[in-house]
Amino acid sequence: MSSTTSETGKAVPGRLASVYSEVQSSRLNISLPLPSVLKTSFNVVDGPPSSAAGNPDGIAKLFPNLFGQPSVILKAGDSGAATKDGSLKIGVVLSGGQAPGGHNVISGIFDYLQERAKGSRVYGFKGGPAGIMKCNYVELSTEFIYPYRNQGGFDMICSGRDKIETPEQFKQAEETAKKLDLDGIVVIGGDDSNTNACLLAENFRGKNMKTRVIGCPKTIDGDLKCKEVPTSFGFDTACKIYSEMIGNVMTDARSTGKYYHFVRLMGRAASHITLECALETHPNIAIIGEEVAAKKQTLKSVTDNITDIICKRSKLGYNYGVILIPEGLIDFIPEVQQLISELNEILAHDVVDETGMWKKKLQSQSQELFELFPQAIQEQLLLERDPHGNVQVAKIETEKMLIQMVETELDKRKHEGQYNGQFKGQSHFFGYEGRCGLPTNFDANYCNALGYAAGALLQSGKTGLISSVGNLGAPVEEWTVGGTALTSLMDVERRHGKFKPVIKKAMVELEGAPFKKLASLRDDWALNNRYVSPGPIQFVGPTANAINYTLLLELGVQA
Amino acid sequence: MSSTTSETGKAVPGRLASVYSEVQSSRLNISLPLPSVLKTSFNVVDGPPSSAAGNPDGIAKLFPNLFGQPSVILKAGDSGAATKDGSLKIGVVLSGGQAPGGHNVISGIFDYLQERAKGSRVYGFKGGPAGIMKCNYVELSTEFIYPYRNQGGFDMICSGRDKIETPEQFKQAEETAKKLDLDGIVVIGGDDSNTNACLLAENFRGKNMKTRVIGCPKTIDGDLKCKEVPTSFGFDTACKIYSEMIGNVMTDARSTGKYYHFVRLMGRAASHITLECALETHPNIAIIGEEVAAKKQTLKSVTDNITDIICKRSKLGYNYGVILIPEGLIDFIPEVQQLISELNEILAHDVVDETGMWKKKLQSQSQELFELFPQAIQEQLLLERDPHGNVQVAKIETEKMLIQMVETELDKRKHEGQYNGQFKGQSHFFGYEGRCGLPTNFDANYCNALGYAAGALLQSGKTGLISSVGNLGAPVEEWTVGGTALTSLMDVERRHGKFKPVIKKAMVELEGAPFKKLASLRDDWALNNRYVSPGPIQFVGPTANAINYTLLLELGVQA
Repeated sequence: MSSTTSETGKAVPGRLASVYSEVQSSRLNISLPLPSVLKTSFNVVDGPPSSAAGNPDGIAKLFPNLFGQPSVILKAGDSGAATKDGSLKIGVVLSGGQAPGGHNVISGIFDYLQERAKGSRVYGFKGGPAGIMKCNYVELSTEFIYPYRNQGGFDMICSGRDKIETPEQFKQAEETAKKLDLDGIVVIGGDDSNTNACLLAENFRGKNMKTRVIGCPKTIDGDLKCKEVPTSFGFDTACKIYSEMIGNVMTDARSTGKYYHFVRLMGRAASHITLECALETHPNIAIIGEEVAAKKQTLKSVTDNITDIICKRSKLGYNYGVILIPEGLIDFIPEVQQLISELNEILAHDVVDETGMWKKKLQSQSQELFELFPQAIQEQLLLERDPHGNVQVAKIETEKMLIQMVETELDKRKHEGQYNGQFKGQSHFFGYEGRCGLPTNFDANYCNALGYAAGALLQSGKTGLISSVGNLGAPVEEWTVGGTALTSLMDVERRHGKFKPVIKKAMVELEGAPFKKLASLRDDWALNNRYVSPGPIQFVGPTANAINYTLLLELGVQA
Repeated sequence: MSSTTSETGKAVPGRLASVYSEVQSSRLNISLPLPSVLKTSFNVVDGPPSSAAGNPDGIAKLFPNLFGQPSVILKAGDSGAATKDGSLKIGVVLSGGQAPGGHNVISGIFDYLQERAKGSRVYGFKGGPAGIMKCNYVELSTEFIYPYRNQGGFDMICSGRDKIETPEQFKQAEETAKKLDLDGIVVIGGDDSNTNACLLAENFRGKNMKTRVIGCPKTIDGDLKCKEVPTSFGFDTACKIYSEMIGNVMTDARSTGKYYHFVRLMGRAASHITLECALETHPNIAIIGEEVAAKKQTLKSVTDNITDIICKRSKLGYNYGVILIPEGLIDFIPEVQQLISELNEILAHDVVDETGMWKKKLQSQSQELFELFPQAIQEQLLLERDPHGNVQVAKIETEKMLIQMVETELDKRKHEGQYNGQFKGQSHFFGYEGRCGLPTNFDANYCNALGYAAGALLQSGKTGLISSVGNLGAPVEEWTVGGTALTSLMDVERRHGKFKPVIKKAMVELEGAPFKKLASLRDDWALNNRYVSPGPIQFVGPTANAINYTLLLELGVQA
């Protein structure tokens, strides 16, 4: 779009009838910097034998062929090993929710193979793991990939949430691998999908098939990470998009002087997004679910904490503010879990009528909690149940609930003469807006490198590794490239009576640098208005290559 | 924020304890291009005598001192007239809702006076017109203004929604003008505020006071514009912020393939924002309130139109989509207005109980409409009334209501065998996120020029004009600068039995180029997915100086 453009956008052939904005077009043809090691000849060097994150004996039993294999790193050098295989046939699949940069992982794999294994073929499985099972794929070409370069979304091949779990499903995957004569599959996904990738790798290896499997760390939630995999892709972009909006709302709050904005942010399991957005924008309050759980806070104490700060701010003349809330907040509150399980039990057997007799079956703590909920939430809990008749916690709009609970508490304090301010709550949920944005320079570069790494690992015959790009605080040229044994990230969990391998979600560490930074600053933020407006993501100029605070702090780059 | 920054943001003295992001900081020191005429000596040239937009006799009566005065234009030349006054004392006020660029109007006025009327003093009235009445102000200095340059928000002096209306209030304004010895006041506001500015100008002139009044066109809604004032500031930035989010949601919709996103956009009176965002992003459906009103559509027909397209898309295999809805939609539907007024009447006199006897007092059309509303909306209409007991239409979340109505209709069609798709609605409201963003280059430049123009008009002794910057499709250097007689924009309306001057809101013209563009493309957008993702606003690079489609099309720059 410019003052001389004569059409609203530019037609780009190939991407489902798409028309591109000027910004989208400008991103198509940028050249991405690569880690130096990927620009020369390299050797894939094994590290020491690996173990597991927990329960190594259990993991060894579940992965007899893969357990203990070393993680690897690429080192410049010319052993010729990297090109030993000639051309390859590789499948790639996107698994789970969207994250900015997914298309770049795919183009990275493709470009690597074009450069280093000429004549290779890349198949994109459509609609997630179901595409593997159904052998539903498209062969990727330069022309096919082009319109998706550095673009948001997963629409090149789309994603899905199916899992390859049952013996029949593994059989289907084997058939597809054989039919397409696959040398490898790259699974781009979160913790569950990478666990699944490892099971697939184990299964192929156990059957002496040549098909290798490499994972790539994807999730905007930022909860798939470890020493070797410093961050999951998409987190950087999503947090910056949310932070742009939060910064705008903060400026509005300060200009208007009369609203409390309660902003719920995506991230059901871990609160990394809320923490990162807080470090970027300096809200008056940021609730971190992991802290709520660790301190065994109740819903009443969470509400009271918010209300206390609102009262103090009112005395300073500020009847406005911004409060960040993680999507999964109420899942972190033990008493809520207790109430829900009691409710499910009661609803299965009793008549829930207006006499309220059924309430007497609740334990006293649960009864108190239920009465604390605003009426609309009570009704929602009782009426809107899932197909199994269970209460749907996920449907509760936590930000609206908190606004009502804070209102009630403020009214009480007003009557008691402890508060005489004005309170108007505005609710926001920032979620879908962030999952498919144009990837930041960081995510674009990181994903490209992850894709190249996956290509290199497959070419060198590796399986059961997750593509690992490190030293991310340094310029891209200095990034390290390798693969980490997926089994080394795993622990065993008992689910539905069975032992299952799991990659544990990386939760916010209360002793970690990002949370400690928040903890050291939040009292100041609460009462003084230290709002920061990060503004829109820039792709060129001095601010274009910034990376997120969480990563900087975890890398120790930042004090 | 960069990999070498050691603190989360940079402290900027002066702006209420603020800490700046790198993007904010980078915007502080940019130099803004000026229209050529403002870089040289110029004369302020009168045009022909003006009339009124309607009812010139009525306007002449209401503005005996100002009616008929010419609009003016600045022309390069050296008559010396522009500096005749020496230093000036000028007050400035922000009125009404936030719009990106307000700070730049103020810095533009300040910079003009620094350059052309050395020794001038500028007072910022705090908290809107109430600041004039209470003589609550701050004197602006280079240091005071600096941290707000090119930043979003109105927090430099804040805004307010009071009006100067009663004789006592005019008296207070006079006292302030005399106390501060004001040569002029600049009112930065929307249609009502500019009407008010003109009344103030008339009043001062009528009392032979030296204080002149100049208005500036502000509103993200884009409904204050005319031939001489091609756009209001803030519209460009707000629409681009909303469009960034809509584009992201579109990419998400296409990637996920299972959600219909119903996006409500700010703009209660006119649908310009929805129209502009539609032109930027190509949604499957964009509802334009003015068209709904012109075609006398009912809520049922609006719902049916949406449902028809969803059914057609489902047959094509698309069970997803994006639908834009103007905030003011239901205000445009005549039957809703009728229902509301009947309800207000009934609620004032009758008992509204569960027997539903009261419903029989509704006319049959209203009764049908009431039954059409989802239950939650019915309850909201009956229960959540304003302090006068009136039904609160503004509180209805139109996007959620439409989702429920569409669901009901789809269920019906499913039972009738006309539809067998899946429908999941997701609701969004984009409002507060857009009012205080960092102004685009266009809004930054436009506001700066508006401020300079206001300074020039005051310096040349003009009053009752609105700052007018034109030829906006050309490079900034070629923009025209002048002032338009506010009385020429006015008509007379009867409100509460009194004749009042009003600047009519500029509604979406169904014969105008922007709507015609939408109308010519929307059938294609409905069924094919022509989604465009405008991406985040860029401040540098090839896409940074784009202006919005509405303005381009109205200027005839674009085919």
